[in-house]
Amino acid sequence: MTFNMQSHPFDNATYLNQQETGVYFGHTSANYANMIGPFGGVIASTLLRSILEHPDCIGSPVSLTVNYAAPVKDKDFKIIAKPTRTNRSTQHWYVELLQNEQTVISSTAVTALKRNTWSSTELAMPEAPPFKEVPKLPMIDVPPWVQNYDIRIIKGAPRAFTNDSVTDSVTLQWIEDMPKRKLDYLSLTSICDAFFPRIYVRREPFVPIGTVSLTIYFHIDASTLGKERAQPVLGHTRAINFNEGFYDQTGEIWSSNGVLLATTTQLVYYKA
Amino acid sequence: MTFNMQSHPFDNATYLNQQETGVYFGHTSANYANMIGPFGGVIASTLLRSILEHPDCIGSPVSLTVNYAAPVKDKDFKIIAKPTRTNRSTQHWYVELLQNEQTVISSTAVTALKRNTWSSTELAMPEAPPFKEVPKLPMIDVPPWVQNYDIRIIKGAPRAFTNDSVTDSVTLQWIEDMPKRKLDYLSLTSICDAFFPRIYVRREPFVPIGTVSLTIYFHIDASTLGKERAQPVLGHTRAINFNEGFYDQTGEIWSSNGVLLATTTQLVYYKA
Repeated sequence: MTFNMQSHPFDNATYLNQQETGVYFGHTSANYANMIGPFGGVIASTLLRSILEHPDCIGSPVSLTVNYAAPVKDKDFKIIAKPTRTNRSTQHWYVELLQNEQTVISSTAVTALKRNTWSSTELAMPEAPPFKEVPKLPMIDVPPWVQNYDIRIIKGAPRAFTNDSVTDSVTLQWIEDMPKRKLDYLSLTSICDAFFPRIYVRREPFVPIGTVSLTIYFHIDASTLGKERAQPVLGHTRAINFNEGFYDQTGEIWSSNGVLLATTTQLVYYKA
Repeated sequence: MTFNMQSHPFDNATYLNQQETGVYFGHTSANYANMIGPFGGVIASTLLRSILEHPDCIGSPVSLTVNYAAPVKDKDFKIIAKPTRTNRSTQHWYVELLQNEQTVISSTAVTALKRNTWSSTELAMPEAPPFKEVPKLPMIDVPPWVQNYDIRIIKGAPRAFTNDSVTDSVTLQWIEDMPKRKLDYLSLTSICDAFFPRIYVRREPFVPIGTVSLTIYFHIDASTLGKERAQPVLGHTRAINFNEGFYDQTGEIWSSNGVLLATTTQLVYYKA
């Protein structure tokens, strides 16, 4: 199977035009639209792309936090990315996405040069049947962004898609870009946010929700990630607590061959 | 037991002098010194305090991310706190701590007005013997900040303190301010960072480590927190992955009576 990186809808969706150092212009993508506005995962990837394409960037991302301050409108936006501190092997970033000169998204990130040292993964990869043996998510009544992923839910589908009665919000799913695309930090970022909202797993009504803050720790170094092929990854997530309008969503993303790629947590607003 | 909030060493350590709106001056505290420089938990609390004392602040904190960009020196510092976006019920913040006009810490936070709605805690509080039945941590060879806490480790003490052989980095501990102090968002923030580094639980050598980025989600609303008394809280934490110089530390803080107060995650640099 062959595919052209540059023509993949994901690369177009996150495309930025750098006007001057650290100042970019972009546009939301109809392919990755959500129910209202763009899919937050692709917006997070776009912010990360502004860092990785910055001429002063050193190393690869280890930490990213994105704060969704206001709804992103379907139109042009400006991104300003600034290194706030550059050390010998780590670099700290502050990034803002603006529309009408107002802050819509704020973000901090850390990039770093990793080096070989003692390493240990404590968590075991969850057991899961092979990707091909899990039925594909039916693409009925889903927003456009979902149609760019092949999602196969092993456990914890939204209540609207299943008759299973559940008592927790745990989801285990295979996911890959559709059409296929080689995994990189940008697609991994988006995949960290590509779980259905936890409250839809616990409760049937489609209440309004929105991510308030998203954090991703990248556990894979650039050279190992560079060896990954275009293949599905396994995502595991759950909410620990739903409390008075806000819940968390905590998860891990594993490569098919059992490497922990990223851990992620987000805080989500809900109206129930 | 009585105590004076204003004279508690923690309140002195996080004290800020607001010179103009959102511009503060503070000083590191010898009481909360770490091996080198100040304890990062108290620095995180001080940044949060700059938000909570800002005249434009609405609501109480729901999310806080603190990026430790460079070592904080033991001396004066300046904090600049800005609301980046104010909505009807949520507010987004960007805060920087500067020394010599350079960014040393950057931080984002979300404050919000919570409201009563459907709520559910999925995780059970870990089982633990009562605080009084667990031996107190011996205060030998510990940095000054540890001496401001009564820490009682049920499981997962640093290898230097114990002969237990362990295969994971899980720690379960009771902790409270010493002298006692009523719990608030500031002390809760600091307690989220008051676990010993995970790598010292897994491995004996005291290798250099430093938190790179810390995220806290506050699950307790202000009025419920206001009813908390000065009493120990239960902290549970673990690392999922140690990889080429960076590991995560993920945890939960519970009140004595089983309320989930906060979830937290941090990325830590280590040299092994």
